[in-house]
Amino acid sequence: MTAATTGRWHEVLTKTEWVAIVTWDGQQPHTVANWGDYIRALSEPGSDTLVMPAGWYHRTEANLRRDRRVQVILASRQVAGSHGPGQGYLLEGEGEIELDGEWARRAKATYPWARGALILHIQRAHAQL
Amino acid sequence: MTAATTGRWHEVLTKTEWVAIVTWDGQQPHTVANWGDYIRALSEPGSDTLVMPAGWYHRTEANLRRDRRVQVILASRQVAGSHGPGQGYLLEGEGEIELDGEWARRAKATYPWARGALILHIQRAHAQL
Repeated sequence: MTAATTGRWHEVLTKTEWVAIVTWDGQQPHTVANWGDYIRALSEPGSDTLVMPAGWYHRTEANLRRDRRVQVILASRQVAGSHGPGQGYLLEGEGEIELDGEWARRAKATYPWARGALILHIQRAHAQL
Repeated sequence: MTAATTGRWHEVLTKTEWVAIVTWDGQQPHTVANWGDYIRALSEPGSDTLVMPAGWYHRTEANLRRDRRVQVILASRQVAGSHGPGQGYLLEGEGEIELDGEWARRAKATYPWARGALILHIQRAHAQL
């Protein structure tokens, strides 16, 4: 997998403690989070595809079935930014929850409490903060 | 100001490196972030009112003028959670951007690049992660 997006968000992903993930149902957003080290354990470094364990995420799953679009935000003080220490990125892309298949199998093998994998295909990255 | 919400989110706020803030325009969400230390510098500890510098946030401002509702998510590995180290919270409430007034004045005094203050009135807190 190669990265088509630009910007230093992959560097921020190596440091961010957690990420926020936003989906929507046509009326209002639904915001969840996942730990950065969980994402780093399942995703290929430098890839535009983020894989993370899905432990619950029922509303996220329903939203993504209706509208695949997703927003992700991540940040770390450990990455140098335009205005001193700290950089954030807003990512836009599409997502899906896999309950079977290779990614789900890997998520469940690493995190036995997971019911599958949340897979995000990042298409655009915007520097923040 | 006293806290009407329940849960340990105030403790997470003392540790979170950053927070994500989600508003919406009726069609789709808009996600921004702010640093935890900026919020801690301007907000009263233990209060359900969060104050942070607004450096740009034009779309957040337009969204809040249309619909005051806001979602905030924060997390820290430094707070003990239900399943080991780490706790997150999803907060729901209402928000506004003040360009004048006491909070805006304080935000601009502390952060000269700020054009005002983003003020969030938290009404509900849900444990995450």
